Amino acid sequence: MATMVTLDQEQLKQDLIDTGRWIDGNRWCPATSGNLSAWLDAEQFLITVSGKGKGELTPDDLMTVDASGNPVNTPKRPSAETLLHSLIYRRFPQARYVFHTHSIYGTLISRVIWSGEIVFRNYELQKAFAGIDTHEVALKVPVFGNSQDMVALAQEVDTHLDSVQSCQAFILAGHGLYTWGSTVKETRRHIEALEFLLECEYKSMLLLK
Amino acid sequence: MATMVTLDQEQLKQDLIDTGRWIDGNRWCPATSGNLSAWLDAEQFLITVSGKGKGELTPDDLMTVDASGNPVNTPKRPSAETLLHSLIYRRFPQARYVFHTHSIYGTLISRVIWSGEIVFRNYELQKAFAGIDTHEVALKVPVFGNSQDMVALAQEVDTHLDSVQSCQAFILAGHGLYTWGSTVKETRRHIEALEFLLECEYKSMLLLK
Amino acid sequence: MATMVTLDQEQLKQDLIDTGRWIDGNRWCPATSGNLSAWLDAEQFLITVSGKGKGELTPDDLMTVDASGNPVNTPKRPSAETLLHSLIYRRFPQARYVFHTHSIYGTLISRVIWSGEIVFRNYELQKAFAGIDTHEVALKVPVFGNSQDMVALAQEVDTHLDSVQSCQAFILAGHGLYTWGSTVKETRRHIEALEFLLECEYKSMLLLK
Amino acid sequence: MATMVTLDQEQLKQDLIDTGRWIDGNRWCPATSGNLSAWLDAEQFLITVSGKGKGELTPDDLMTVDASGNPVNTPKRPSAETLLHSLIYRRFPQARYVFHTHSIYGTLISRVIWSGEIVFRNYELQKAFAGIDTHEVALKVPVFGNSQDMVALAQEVDTHLDSVQSCQAFILAGHGLYTWGSTVKETRRHIEALEFLLECEYKSMLLLK
Repeated sequence: MATMVTLDQEQLKQDLIDTGRWIDGNRWCPATSGNLSAWLDAEQFLITVSGKGKGELTPDDLMTVDASGNPVNTPKRPSAETLLHSLIYRRFPQARYVFHTHSIYGTLISRVIWSGEIVFRNYELQKAFAGIDTHEVALKVPVFGNSQDMVALAQEVDTHLDSVQSCQAFILAGHGLYTWGSTVKETRRHIEALEFLLECEYKSMLLLK
Repeated sequence: MATMVTLDQEQLKQDLIDTGRWIDGNRWCPATSGNLSAWLDAEQFLITVSGKGKGELTPDDLMTVDASGNPVNTPKRPSAETLLHSLIYRRFPQARYVFHTHSIYGTLISRVIWSGEIVFRNYELQKAFAGIDTHEVALKVPVFGNSQDMVALAQEVDTHLDSVQSCQAFILAGHGLYTWGSTVKETRRHIEALEFLLECEYKSMLLLK
Repeated sequence: MATMVTLDQEQLKQDLIDTGRWIDGNRWCPATSGNLSAWLDAEQFLITVSGKGKGELTPDDLMTVDASGNPVNTPKRPSAETLLHSLIYRRFPQARYVFHTHSIYGTLISRVIWSGEIVFRNYELQKAFAGIDTHEVALKVPVFGNSQDMVALAQEVDTHLDSVQSCQAFILAGHGLYTWGSTVKETRRHIEALEFLLECEYKSMLLLK
Repeated sequence: MATMVTLDQEQLKQDLIDTGRWIDGNRWCPATSGNLSAWLDAEQFLITVSGKGKGELTPDDLMTVDASGNPVNTPKRPSAETLLHSLIYRRFPQARYVFHTHSIYGTLISRVIWSGEIVFRNYELQKAFAGIDTHEVALKVPVFGNSQDMVALAQEVDTHLDSVQSCQAFILAGHGLYTWGSTVKETRRHIEALEFLLECEYKSMLLLK
């Protein structure tokens, strides 16, 4: 049994290392920004340590934290945004991976929306999200004003989630994107779809303004 | 004879796998979108199964369907758009490959044209299409409003094709591009030329608006 | 002596094959567009045959033509634009390589200038051209209206060259870029600098219009 | 002791070679532009020789210069901008690496600011700079008018540095970016963050103008 858990952790770590390389190749986590996590059980998850380039993660760059985001058996420092990962695992019990990227287009959207929501309409790629099967329903992604006070920010996100029926992702203004999924493939699909939609939306705005 | 057919199928599958990797490297099928097919004979064609990333296709991700797009000897589910591939093979008897991509610029064009046509003029690269030998003749690509009702959409495309003398490609608004060719090289050349022309056209619109 | 010539040709062919792969990686010759040549002697040069992707050239895709651009000892068909390469070798005796690319930004410039010239000012990278050692002198690149009549087009370029003191490159509207150099490194540097300057100029126009 | 110094130099050279390849892959030093240096001791530093592509540096392309930028024991010619590297090592005693890149977005910014400063506000990525821990403090990067007179330009930069409390980077208009750091990782992080911020700022300007 213990062996199985160990094997699982190794696989999860490899998933995050591979995802980091893919994200870095797409320039979605420049300059050591962003963070990636994977659920272990109801009481713990794995998360990238602070300040590492996502393109060259090693197993040592992944640490275990408890459900509240506190380090477990390690002197390593987790990413500042660990609290938001913790919140997401609590609010979305099916979530097994949470990825926070930091792209050009995720950043640009907050030049026009510092706090509010971005609404995607009529894009076939909205269907990339689990549970969405038509382009005819709007996909709404909330945007929260960036803050260095992660407790207050997590509280704001939590309150927002109380007010909506579903949520696939959210954006911190001038900062980046959070999304999650029940498998590593699904979570990567969500990231890829959101980055595509954000690029389309920015380029639409330029054309139509 | 049977052996030869088997060998052919292996080569066709490899063509689609290689094309998928090339398309993925260009970000033209993000988040498992798009689909690729290859003609087998008047009664069957190969097509990518639903929901697979185009950058990592394996032979198992390619299934056989009949001329109407129904699965042959397999419980696998074909892509939703199989009906459009079926239509193209029926309308263009010389077509041996059909590629449906889902790019940023193919999507953006429908922000200004939801239904109608995009006309390319004065681009030397219009000559990339079989049968076109000058930039002086306009290249017209019809744009159809996107729909989740593939039967209705196929009917609309079919009716349009009755009304034009030639057609090299068409676009589904907010969704993507379909093109075809008599060899895998020609079909890839068509995709590459169209993506180039769409990017030029978007960037021209920004400059000239 | 004959052996030396043979070795030279092999090296020149390898230069063009390597350059083709580099150009293709930058998407500067999409859909088999563009052509590359290398001077052999006053009476002959090597040039890419028509219709091959520049990313996967083989020695067989390079043919010998005479100074007027006619095939030498081969049934292969040279690129349509061979006449312009021929003209460049005649007008610029120091030229050893001529590259014709077909990029997004080279094409876009002709959306605002169909015939005339593009003038680059105040870019440090103007110094990438042999003989230019300050950003304070304008770099002028003539733009000629595209034509399928290569004889007439070559005549127009020739007449223009009579009227200017120096010329580092020229553009065919809606089509692409020609530049040349005395070594393969210098010619690649010219291509890279021009593509950079064209991208800057397009993006400047968007900002300043 | 002598052996240790030799080993250090080999490692520093490898750092610059690797950084050059990374920069070239990002198209931040096109057409042999830009230069990279590494501090040896208070009296000497290593710098790239003039006119080499940054993607294919060899140890021979790195030369030693004294603190004033004059070649040490070598007939090689240093880059024209060596004087600015020299100035940076003198003004910022903690600097161990100085990178000068030459990107599209670094160039574009001077289309609107030829001389003055660019101010980044509300970007989380401002925190990529050593000593900055919030997006709420503006990051100011001075822009100096480009000049071929490096002595005058260095004097202008020096005078500016007397007038400010801190400086993380500066830009030469129409030319490129200089930044520095105490490790190779930190200096690369600064380059990556600045290129990201410059791209965001250009794309914000397009949207908001």
